[in-house]
Amino acid sequence: MQITDEKLHYAAPVTPSTGTFSPLPLTAVQLAGGFWGDRQQLNQEAIIPHGTDWVTRLEWLGNLEKAATGERYEHRGREFADSEVYKLIEAMSWEHARTGQSDLDGTLESFINKLAAAQDPDGYLHTLFGRPWQQPRYSDFKWGHELYCFGHLIQAAVANYRATGTEKLLAVAMKLADHVCTMFGSSGLNKVCGHAEIESALVELSRLTGERRYLDQAKIFIERRGTGTLPLIEFGQAYWQDDVPVRAATVLRGHAVRALYLAAGAVDVAVETNDQELLNALKQQWHNTVARRTYITGGMGSHHMDEAFGDDFVLPPDRSYCETCAGVASVMFSWRLLLATGEAKYADLIERTLYNIVATSPAPDGRSFFYANTLHQRTSVGEAPLNEDGVCIRGGSSGREAWFEVSCCPPNVARTLASLGSYLATSDETGVQIHQYAASRIRADIISGPVELAIETDYPASGSIKVTIVEAPATPFTVALRVPDWAHGATIAAGEGVQRVAPGMATVTRSFQPGQQLLLELPMEPRFTMPDDRIDAVRGCVAIERGPEVFALESVDLPSSVALEDVLVDVSSGLTYSDGTVNLTLSTVVRTPARQSQWPFASETAASAANERIAAEVPLVRYHSWAERGASTMRIWIPARA
Amino acid sequence: MQITDEKLHYAAPVTPSTGTFSPLPLTAVQLAGGFWGDRQQLNQEAIIPHGTDWVTRLEWLGNLEKAATGERYEHRGREFADSEVYKLIEAMSWEHARTGQSDLDGTLESFINKLAAAQDPDGYLHTLFGRPWQQPRYSDFKWGHELYCFGHLIQAAVANYRATGTEKLLAVAMKLADHVCTMFGSSGLNKVCGHAEIESALVELSRLTGERRYLDQAKIFIERRGTGTLPLIEFGQAYWQDDVPVRAATVLRGHAVRALYLAAGAVDVAVETNDQELLNALKQQWHNTVARRTYITGGMGSHHMDEAFGDDFVLPPDRSYCETCAGVASVMFSWRLLLATGEAKYADLIERTLYNIVATSPAPDGRSFFYANTLHQRTSVGEAPLNEDGVCIRGGSSGREAWFEVSCCPPNVARTLASLGSYLATSDETGVQIHQYAASRIRADIISGPVELAIETDYPASGSIKVTIVEAPATPFTVALRVPDWAHGATIAAGEGVQRVAPGMATVTRSFQPGQQLLLELPMEPRFTMPDDRIDAVRGCVAIERGPEVFALESVDLPSSVALEDVLVDVSSGLTYSDGTVNLTLSTVVRTPARQSQWPFASETAASAANERIAAEVPLVRYHSWAERGASTMRIWIPARA
Repeated sequence: MQITDEKLHYAAPVTPSTGTFSPLPLTAVQLAGGFWGDRQQLNQEAIIPHGTDWVTRLEWLGNLEKAATGERYEHRGREFADSEVYKLIEAMSWEHARTGQSDLDGTLESFINKLAAAQDPDGYLHTLFGRPWQQPRYSDFKWGHELYCFGHLIQAAVANYRATGTEKLLAVAMKLADHVCTMFGSSGLNKVCGHAEIESALVELSRLTGERRYLDQAKIFIERRGTGTLPLIEFGQAYWQDDVPVRAATVLRGHAVRALYLAAGAVDVAVETNDQELLNALKQQWHNTVARRTYITGGMGSHHMDEAFGDDFVLPPDRSYCETCAGVASVMFSWRLLLATGEAKYADLIERTLYNIVATSPAPDGRSFFYANTLHQRTSVGEAPLNEDGVCIRGGSSGREAWFEVSCCPPNVARTLASLGSYLATSDETGVQIHQYAASRIRADIISGPVELAIETDYPASGSIKVTIVEAPATPFTVALRVPDWAHGATIAAGEGVQRVAPGMATVTRSFQPGQQLLLELPMEPRFTMPDDRIDAVRGCVAIERGPEVFALESVDLPSSVALEDVLVDVSSGLTYSDGTVNLTLSTVVRTPARQSQWPFASETAASAANERIAAEVPLVRYHSWAERGASTMRIWIPARA
Repeated sequence: MQITDEKLHYAAPVTPSTGTFSPLPLTAVQLAGGFWGDRQQLNQEAIIPHGTDWVTRLEWLGNLEKAATGERYEHRGREFADSEVYKLIEAMSWEHARTGQSDLDGTLESFINKLAAAQDPDGYLHTLFGRPWQQPRYSDFKWGHELYCFGHLIQAAVANYRATGTEKLLAVAMKLADHVCTMFGSSGLNKVCGHAEIESALVELSRLTGERRYLDQAKIFIERRGTGTLPLIEFGQAYWQDDVPVRAATVLRGHAVRALYLAAGAVDVAVETNDQELLNALKQQWHNTVARRTYITGGMGSHHMDEAFGDDFVLPPDRSYCETCAGVASVMFSWRLLLATGEAKYADLIERTLYNIVATSPAPDGRSFFYANTLHQRTSVGEAPLNEDGVCIRGGSSGREAWFEVSCCPPNVARTLASLGSYLATSDETGVQIHQYAASRIRADIISGPVELAIETDYPASGSIKVTIVEAPATPFTVALRVPDWAHGATIAAGEGVQRVAPGMATVTRSFQPGQQLLLELPMEPRFTMPDDRIDAVRGCVAIERGPEVFALESVDLPSSVALEDVLVDVSSGLTYSDGTVNLTLSTVVRTPARQSQWPFASETAASAANERIAAEVPLVRYHSWAERGASTMRIWIPARA
């Protein structure tokens, strides 16, 4: 193992050896309050402690403790309970890198010690399998989640080493990864895990350690997937992406989180093995998935039953699943493609997904979470079904709940918020690229020397982003600012007047002096957005967006006499914004008796009977802020008044 | 037990002691070919033998054989496997009544002997529970389906006795029902089955035997449901209708088949106990369910995950679940309300459901079946996932499959087709009511004497229905003919000229002479139908119907260059009908480049970009006949050209 100092300090989740843009480590990007800085603070103070409390209380951590004793124990939680502990370790590690504060209360060290003690002598580590009284190891590739848990352990170890430089967890991860290479190498078991996850973890471990065998093993898993080593189940082989080889697929399908984790790992393999064919296949999959299978919120996954993508243009707002973890995984996939290609569209989707999925999940107190993120809530969320441990047994359609039987989402939010700094900006030989806007300091080392930028903004409250050069090399370099895809009419001022800039990357190349400023102005007028006419479920409806935020109409903002289903939007009316809400003129429908008949399908004549309409003005809330004012119903897509 | 001859010969599934209309027994209604007569023939020759073959091959019948030996055995199939045997016994029994042919190959007797031998001394009969090596009896009210299976046994026994007069199965059923009364009476276990079914069975057993205790037990189960004796699960307590007492509920909710079986049983209890409050609640539930939660096909149940009703107006055509069994159960519920109230709307829904759900399920050869009945198939149905026994493990979204792991639907189709004659007509003191039109002979005994009617029609190929009086009492009586809700402009000719008749019941009262004729002409022009504007999923779409049949656009009828998603209907164009298809002018959309962007949500301006359109004429098929010509995609709701 040859870990260089540079790699140690490179506290970023994804560090490709090649690509258009290089990521910046968390140590080089500090957020200062604002939309995301506040959420990072919330993560530190509430979300992470909430998570470590729950895995302790439910004895998911206890599984690891008990496994270390060698004595018989009853496993608690689901088959992937170990992974929630690992994701929290990853989150705490990134927190260490982000804040520079060491493990103040010892939780991180305690978690790591417990899992390290539970490792078998040959490197295997899973608390549900392999002991004499348990199912044998590798007896259930469908649902066992063994390799999935290993992947999260490896990601946690990479994060921990990069953040802290301590080797204990990394040694566990390498021993585990070596075991995996032995068991599943080209002459080993011809199997893949039902849930992809380990692929990107193995590549990152290879990037950190310089050990090629981990990359090779990741490549084996990627190539093996789609060859039918998993069985055909009720949901089809597409459920675990075992229907078509990754390089032959044209769109994401099946279980959304599985599909997206797999795609992220496949990009990593393609980049490190210089496999352009594979990379092109993944770019095509991203394109088709975003053009046909993605919600306006960035949410992915239409189906509850199998937590899966729907067919093209099947994007019903009702009970849209849009699992929070799929949002996290989508960010992972897009981020890797952004680094590889430098195309701004990937950062566009990341922004949309961060604001409308990742930010939507946690409540303002950081102690309850949406698992699914529906676009249309028809009946107010009622009492959550809880099991004997007091955790919610329903992921989909629930309100924000403290913890779930399948509690993948809260720790995924935690590790994403903790590492968010690394998704804001990148560098290349010519300069620095800023992809996401937040009040922050950004440092980068480019060929001509160190660069430091100070970014002042209250985005997305306003669209003004001021970039001040704090430190700059003497020679010219480029500052590139992403102009989001929705930002038609953006301008940039760089000292010599104001220029209009089109969506994409706006670049300013020159010799900068410390103190010089760039001012990007993004147009923040609220806007109506209409769906492709092939999306049947929202035909004739409009959504309201402002900047990167999608807005929603929530029943608590309607007069009590008006039902959500009786509201139409007059798209000729103006939209005004103030203080987090968009004000909208709408029509309230008073249905004629003919429309209240016993059968809701009628001849053309009957259906055209005019309903009476009464105008009203109501505020719309930012989607990520809905369901914060008691029981309510909500819709993002609102029928347009004809 | 006092079974009168009259009851013996009353070979009908539902025989209320009171109500507006009285049912006619199968022995009094003979179908003569045509749409339904042919399907009854198919049922006799293919569907029933196919079912008895499968339950034999899979050893679901074998469970009963083995249980009789007292020796240890491995139970085959799911926890409700017994019930499929019982539904086939019911179907064979109705076949006996319908055709007058006794059990030619001995299958019926053999099945009955096997189940009778399996009964425990105290009356209990279920092959999965209660033996020393099995789970205890009544240890799983959630998923055990014990009382559910009992209900189907009782229904089979009632059918068998009414059809054949043999007492063996009836004795088994009464012993079982007595056991249930002992176990679950007012001083017994305060429990209900997770799946309602036994309620209507107990009422019918009471009707047959005159034993009040069975009715009392049914009433106990109805009153107990909704009091929270079942646990709160992921899908909510509404899943098994245990959220709200039956008499307090205003709409059907939760698992559709459970909700509909429960509602049918509750009508039976309301009628026999003269409980007008309960009956009114059920009428209200029917009204709200039909007005807000029913598909144009009559299908019920929007959700795959919990096979459940959606919220009001959640009727997505994509992956609409519309389980075949829910169609059967809906007919059961409506039929009971029709008998109780005499309102034609119940027969309207029965007709719609029979033509578009019950007739859709079986393939023309009677050897494969739709389990779910989607209204929009986006991708061609692929290979069915089969288990080691060769049965399909996926109910929803499959094509027609030979048999299912959960194979409730095929035997339900079988018992419905076998007893279909009893749903065509009724009588009351004043005369005869004809609710469904089919070439048939109908006999009824009314106060003034016997009536026999001959009905000649090729409905729904045409809308001409000729009713000839074959036998009539000397005094005046009434022939009432249902004019379906869609039949605006129907006429009736009764000798003295032609009269227009409105939807509802058209009555002709007079002294009839044998040989006299009534001619009902229903308007059979194909028509466009538009959805209530609160049904988001099909806003801006139209369906095409003709008579009681819903039509569908199937990809095999499109030019190969045209995708189903690119088709718009021009509602100003004419519709013509010939030989089972409706010919329709449609527009094929050639999308402009702006509409092929990478993100399917755009500003108002971009979205209004005109697509090029090319007119074409294509045939639409009757929905029940789709998926008979190889792999295809299909939609019922088609976007209307703006």
